[in-house]
Amino acid sequence: MLDSGASFLARKRIERSSEVEYKLVYSFDEGNKDMVDILGGKGANLSEMTKIGISVPFGFVITTQVCEYFLQTGRYPDAFASDLQEKLRLLEVKMVKRFGDRHNPLLVSVRSGAAVSMPGMMDTILNLGLNDETVLGLIDKTKDERFAFDSYRRFLQMFGAVVLGIDHKRFEKILGAVKVAKGVELDMELDSDDLQNIVSDYKNLIAELSGAEFPQNPYEQLKMAVEAVFKSWTNDRAITYRKIHGIDDAGGTAVTIQSMVFGNIGNDSGTGVAFTRNPSTGERKIYGEFLVNAQGEDVVAGIRTPMNIEELENVNIDLYRQLLSVKEKLELHYRDLQDIEFTIEKGKLYLLQTRSGKRTMRAALKVAIDMVGEGIITKEEAIMSIDPNQIGQMLHPQIKSGVERDILAKGLAASPGAASGKIVFDTEKAVELVKNHGEKVILVRNETSPEDISGMHIAEGILTARGGMTSHAAVVCRGMGKCCVSGCEKLDINEDKREMRVDGIVLKEGETITLDGGTGEVMLGELEMEKAKISEEFKVILEWAKEIKRMEVRANADNPEDCKQSLSLGAEGVGLCRTEHMFFDEDRIPLVRRLILAQNDAVRGEVLKQLERIQTKDFTDILEVMRNRPVVIRLLDPPLHEFLPRTRAQMNKLAQEIGCTVDEVIKVSNSLHEVNPMMGHRGCRLGVTFPEIYQMQVRAICAAANRVMAYGSWDMSDNQTDESYRRINVHIEVPLISHVNELRFIRGVIEETINGFKEINFDYTIGTMIEVPRACLTADEISEFADFFSFGTNDLTQMTFGYSRDDSGKFLPEYFEKGILKGDPMGKIDQNGVGELMKICVAKGRMSKPGLEVGICGEQAGDPESVDFCHKLGLDYISCSPFRVPTAILSAAQARIREKQNLVKLS
Amino acid sequence: MLDSGASFLARKRIERSSEVEYKLVYSFDEGNKDMVDILGGKGANLSEMTKIGISVPFGFVITTQVCEYFLQTGRYPDAFASDLQEKLRLLEVKMVKRFGDRHNPLLVSVRSGAAVSMPGMMDTILNLGLNDETVLGLIDKTKDERFAFDSYRRFLQMFGAVVLGIDHKRFEKILGAVKVAKGVELDMELDSDDLQNIVSDYKNLIAELSGAEFPQNPYEQLKMAVEAVFKSWTNDRAITYRKIHGIDDAGGTAVTIQSMVFGNIGNDSGTGVAFTRNPSTGERKIYGEFLVNAQGEDVVAGIRTPMNIEELENVNIDLYRQLLSVKEKLELHYRDLQDIEFTIEKGKLYLLQTRSGKRTMRAALKVAIDMVGEGIITKEEAIMSIDPNQIGQMLHPQIKSGVERDILAKGLAASPGAASGKIVFDTEKAVELVKNHGEKVILVRNETSPEDISGMHIAEGILTARGGMTSHAAVVCRGMGKCCVSGCEKLDINEDKREMRVDGIVLKEGETITLDGGTGEVMLGELEMEKAKISEEFKVILEWAKEIKRMEVRANADNPEDCKQSLSLGAEGVGLCRTEHMFFDEDRIPLVRRLILAQNDAVRGEVLKQLERIQTKDFTDILEVMRNRPVVIRLLDPPLHEFLPRTRAQMNKLAQEIGCTVDEVIKVSNSLHEVNPMMGHRGCRLGVTFPEIYQMQVRAICAAANRVMAYGSWDMSDNQTDESYRRINVHIEVPLISHVNELRFIRGVIEETINGFKEINFDYTIGTMIEVPRACLTADEISEFADFFSFGTNDLTQMTFGYSRDDSGKFLPEYFEKGILKGDPMGKIDQNGVGELMKICVAKGRMSKPGLEVGICGEQAGDPESVDFCHKLGLDYISCSPFRVPTAILSAAQARIREKQNLVKLS
Repeated sequence: MLDSGASFLARKRIERSSEVEYKLVYSFDEGNKDMVDILGGKGANLSEMTKIGISVPFGFVITTQVCEYFLQTGRYPDAFASDLQEKLRLLEVKMVKRFGDRHNPLLVSVRSGAAVSMPGMMDTILNLGLNDETVLGLIDKTKDERFAFDSYRRFLQMFGAVVLGIDHKRFEKILGAVKVAKGVELDMELDSDDLQNIVSDYKNLIAELSGAEFPQNPYEQLKMAVEAVFKSWTNDRAITYRKIHGIDDAGGTAVTIQSMVFGNIGNDSGTGVAFTRNPSTGERKIYGEFLVNAQGEDVVAGIRTPMNIEELENVNIDLYRQLLSVKEKLELHYRDLQDIEFTIEKGKLYLLQTRSGKRTMRAALKVAIDMVGEGIITKEEAIMSIDPNQIGQMLHPQIKSGVERDILAKGLAASPGAASGKIVFDTEKAVELVKNHGEKVILVRNETSPEDISGMHIAEGILTARGGMTSHAAVVCRGMGKCCVSGCEKLDINEDKREMRVDGIVLKEGETITLDGGTGEVMLGELEMEKAKISEEFKVILEWAKEIKRMEVRANADNPEDCKQSLSLGAEGVGLCRTEHMFFDEDRIPLVRRLILAQNDAVRGEVLKQLERIQTKDFTDILEVMRNRPVVIRLLDPPLHEFLPRTRAQMNKLAQEIGCTVDEVIKVSNSLHEVNPMMGHRGCRLGVTFPEIYQMQVRAICAAANRVMAYGSWDMSDNQTDESYRRINVHIEVPLISHVNELRFIRGVIEETINGFKEINFDYTIGTMIEVPRACLTADEISEFADFFSFGTNDLTQMTFGYSRDDSGKFLPEYFEKGILKGDPMGKIDQNGVGELMKICVAKGRMSKPGLEVGICGEQAGDPESVDFCHKLGLDYISCSPFRVPTAILSAAQARIREKQNLVKLS
Repeated sequence: MLDSGASFLARKRIERSSEVEYKLVYSFDEGNKDMVDILGGKGANLSEMTKIGISVPFGFVITTQVCEYFLQTGRYPDAFASDLQEKLRLLEVKMVKRFGDRHNPLLVSVRSGAAVSMPGMMDTILNLGLNDETVLGLIDKTKDERFAFDSYRRFLQMFGAVVLGIDHKRFEKILGAVKVAKGVELDMELDSDDLQNIVSDYKNLIAELSGAEFPQNPYEQLKMAVEAVFKSWTNDRAITYRKIHGIDDAGGTAVTIQSMVFGNIGNDSGTGVAFTRNPSTGERKIYGEFLVNAQGEDVVAGIRTPMNIEELENVNIDLYRQLLSVKEKLELHYRDLQDIEFTIEKGKLYLLQTRSGKRTMRAALKVAIDMVGEGIITKEEAIMSIDPNQIGQMLHPQIKSGVERDILAKGLAASPGAASGKIVFDTEKAVELVKNHGEKVILVRNETSPEDISGMHIAEGILTARGGMTSHAAVVCRGMGKCCVSGCEKLDINEDKREMRVDGIVLKEGETITLDGGTGEVMLGELEMEKAKISEEFKVILEWAKEIKRMEVRANADNPEDCKQSLSLGAEGVGLCRTEHMFFDEDRIPLVRRLILAQNDAVRGEVLKQLERIQTKDFTDILEVMRNRPVVIRLLDPPLHEFLPRTRAQMNKLAQEIGCTVDEVIKVSNSLHEVNPMMGHRGCRLGVTFPEIYQMQVRAICAAANRVMAYGSWDMSDNQTDESYRRINVHIEVPLISHVNELRFIRGVIEETINGFKEINFDYTIGTMIEVPRACLTADEISEFADFFSFGTNDLTQMTFGYSRDDSGKFLPEYFEKGILKGDPMGKIDQNGVGELMKICVAKGRMSKPGLEVGICGEQAGDPESVDFCHKLGLDYISCSPFRVPTAILSAAQARIREKQNLVKLS
């Protein structure tokens, strides 16, 4: 969602209030897993585990709200100090230890934990509460002097680095010097005396570099650590991470304060991490590693090789069983694969963290389906567990993971998948290299135009210097399921010299590059790929999703191949068949040009007849594939000048072909020139001024539908015996309506044309694209003449924002950089602006025509958040490019499930 | 107003209903002047005169609704026949005559009368009810055989031509033949026998050409006449008239049926037409002409010269007094100058029609002011009596009325006034001819661009082949008060050959043409002009209007001269000062180009400093003129490429000037190229990516305002002593906001810049243009950061419709032709679409910031209907080009008066 400025306002409001009313600190037994927003992921799950009786070292959580308040005001809420004191007292009582006590000291860890896991923030301080006094208490309790000083040493190092900002290398240098002096290699080889010396040196270092003595007072330590955690929310790494991942800068992090347990206190102790199932394959088997007699940081440090978790069975069968039991309990409770951290202290297992485990899409599908089989989750929960944004991965070849990438430039991730090939700068060269030399090519253009279609078909991938997420290249490539990186502004293409420059590097035609359409990266050379396929599990999930979703999912497809592809990917119809794409094919475009240049009605009529024959064949082929399923055919949309050649050479050629002078070609071309073609003479405006083109298209649709109906030999394998079900079901769609009178006029033209047929053996409706703001605002008038509406959110977004998708690449990067927009509004429905217009449209449209069918066929129909919005809006169908259909199906099901859940909550 | 399709729906609804509930026929004593919609103008006023006791031959009116019903269904409402019968009976009783009676026949006239007067429809049939029998009755009653047969002859001729569609020449031929045979010249010289023969011949002619005998039955005659009137609503002339005048095709005409009185029944009879005051000068004196012993058609026929109405005093003092008395009565009752038709039958005066009299603007102003002085009308009524659309006439030279026009082509009436001059195709030639040869020139361009400004300044008028009512040429010319005809699509300009073609006629540079910017006509040669000036009466009316209106009226003015002009025309501030116009001046554009092409920050900084000095001077000059009045200064808006040269030659020159290679110029130019510049990198998007430009402008504004304040020697002649009133009052305006975060960011930049000043001695606010649909939809968010809103309805209309004003000329003419749109939505606020967005914007904006100042600065702010809409919307100010300010002031006052009237009606 785009930033609405609302969070900014919320912040202003906080500043005004002098006191807060919410609870500031929660003990673990007061929270639960749903309180992620205020306790952070870590704190919420520790609370939850406490609640369900899993062994967790007790502790408490300072809420994210305290952090937010502190960052904005520079001070704490009034009640904070006493609340913190109270929770600390409670912890002391539970642990039967006292904070700062000389004889029985309570030690704690302090950890950050935002609502969303976020690397880059301060992570962990262990052993807080140690000082020159309490370390003696620790010795008393553990009878292990070396352990106690090692703990103190570690604490000083973490505190110095993280809280006081001292370079951790300064600590390592001291440690290293002691080891050298003693002639040993490992920390473990240092004895208690060595460690005492190091502690002393560390304290001196801290005093020297921070300008103050190391704080011996544990409360002072705690206060400083908490503030350090808070401040890490606004460090550069965290801000960058949030920007990249679209996380709101408002809010803050929680702080979890937990009593210490020690894995490094003997061979009956240890530490480890595990997934409750295999995160790569989904196999139902605990997966992870552990280290005996170690603390968490030792696992990460990689000094000792950890053991596979299964070996724990041999090492300590009792512990292993404890672990398996916890695993079962967690999965049953969380109903999901968990990623856990644990520590064993003297033979007792403690969980330090649990969270939903990251997994590959393959594992996600298997886990979801298995868990349904095991009765752990419902089908609905299985569907909710799959990230629709990731399932696109399953459909495209990818660069093999782990392969090193030498990144040349980065553009927009316009169409997923990866591709390698030789650079070509035009269609001719693409065809030559592919057809004559069997090469693979990448077509590189400043921006593509419909004339590049055949080059795009033949290329492995497309790279453009200009254009955004819905540029011609991006839209067409997503339609083709072809990899595309668009808007790569760094490219400086010189077609004449057949080369391009990137940051001073010159790449000649014929050099090999690799594109990653999922990340927008462009790499030199050919990188190793891995192919993807639709797994059985994938099919199962899609079937379940189809059963649950309410909205119909259709595909944007303009030819029989795309239609077949769409059906195989689960589409239930064609929501947008763009007829202009048919006009750009090599064998048609000369006819279209002849039409545009025709000097008299006779020529025009003859050309239209020829086009009608061709279009009839086009529609026949499509309807044969789609049969009874709905097919929305959009009448011609682009301005006529798009069909004319641009270069002088092409114009000469055209003049020769047609038998006119090149001056005539230029004159027509000039007369069609437009300053802002996007808002020019196109769409229904063509239909009004040249009704004969729409008449031709409607005749072709009717002839095709009648013809397919006449075959009468349809495969009835899908057990449909109802006659009406077998009828061809076409929806004639008029583009770019902004005024009811346009539709009234064109509907008249269409109906008159249809009435010209003796017999109409198929079902049809006449409707309109809704892609101009005015159409939304006057939907009550327009719906009187429309059987259906289909939101064209590409154009609608452009006009609502006043952005031209072909030009916005010039300023959008700076908009993202400055936080003005969170992302390209072409990729995700802008709910506050465009969405508001859509709401007005649906309400007004159905006010004057209750039950009006409304769908969407913009590219955003493949974006999960946008699909959810469409569902809430009450749309009847969504239509997107074929390769996004599975994402759309899953998203539509999730939207329905979310709605049900909300209904349950409300009731 | 654009057709909303609502009338179409109304029509559909009528078709469905089988019976109607409204009254179908009204006697004169049942109607009144407010029933124009159903009785037509004629019928309503005859009823009104009947009501107030003026002598009117009695009659009745068939309503417009019957006509509408008849035209849609082909039949009459069920109750119609009996209702008509009843009214006819009533008329017989009143007149003590009977329809079709052999001895005492009732004769009637049948006349059409729509709500709006409309030439081209069937007008009048007199003497209906005559036949071979009743003519004898007429002789009995009048003892005048010649008169009776002449009446019969006239009736047959009118009936035959109008009802039966027989060419009137066929009748005249018969009449002529008789006169020739008899050797006489005038109809009056024919005697009763001649006329009897003619009647007989006429009947034969009718039988022959219509295929049926002339209907002797008066009821049959009446039925046929009524149907003929109804059908004339849909004849070509009427349809064309309605199209041209923007009258709805729905509805229909009323039919007035009135008992006959005869002005041709002796020398104590006669007929005439008169205005109650002089319609040309406004002088308070009856003005008109009359003819003794004649019927209305004789006056029109021009066979006899009518007498000046004042002569009636000598001819018949009693009648003259009757007439003066009726005149007084009518003016007092209608409170307006009346245009009347009358007949005198045997010394008795009958009124046949009264209506508001058409008058020149000069007369309109004088009549209005006089009537206020005479106590007949209030100041408010005086204001309501002036057509704001016409007062523009007062400010521009016009082609002398009566001068014959040889029209070469017709374009859009883009900016009023008229101008003659020699054709030039570019600024250079314009300058040469004007400066070196003292010629007057007309600049002819395909479309103008900001580079043409100096040529436009120097030319008498501008003619463009492309572009609509808000094209660059149109907007700039209206701003300059300069005549402009735009979008003259017939022009085929060949700049190389220095000539243009229009329909095969070749016009070379240097040939003289004349433009009429009020009609869009282009004429060959130089036509005689008349200059106009602001009269004292005009000033009085404007003063009254200013007292009454609620909205402030400001002007769009970009330099001190325009500011002065605006003040002299009544403006109360500057509502839009476009800073980019300052950048295009000859001495600045090289600097701007240098800025765009700057290779490093040092050059850029230096150029910005120079520009700042210039801008400071610009703003100082403007603020000195405007002083304490509000001045809204809009920060830079157009895309940077508009400032770069377009031709290779100009680029070469620029490269030399700046000292770079032409390749560099081309490279920058290419990198700035946009597919849809209107929706590209402009407005606040420039402010986000190049904040230094806005910073420079804000610094210049502050420096200028401080400087003017520092003078401290303002003329206090307007008796303002309040210190605060003397403060400079600037409003800094950010263009093209579509997202709150844009304004948040730029407001931050502006405030930071202002805070950089040690002292700020003036008042300022920071606001935004509302010209992108999304800004309206999210006005609640945006208003949090805006002190004011100003609707830029030019861009808003373009984006709401998806029309580019530079390109819509390609299809709009066909849209008007086909009735899809009534007019260019750029000229008048589209209330259903754009207006809806404006409503949403005002509501949301003031929801989150009550009392938010909202204005409009689009060209539509000079259109009376749009001004009324803005008033209803609750806008605080309107701002238009200087020469439209008087229109806007008057319109704003009328809007306020209309509102009061509605409040009275409601209470």
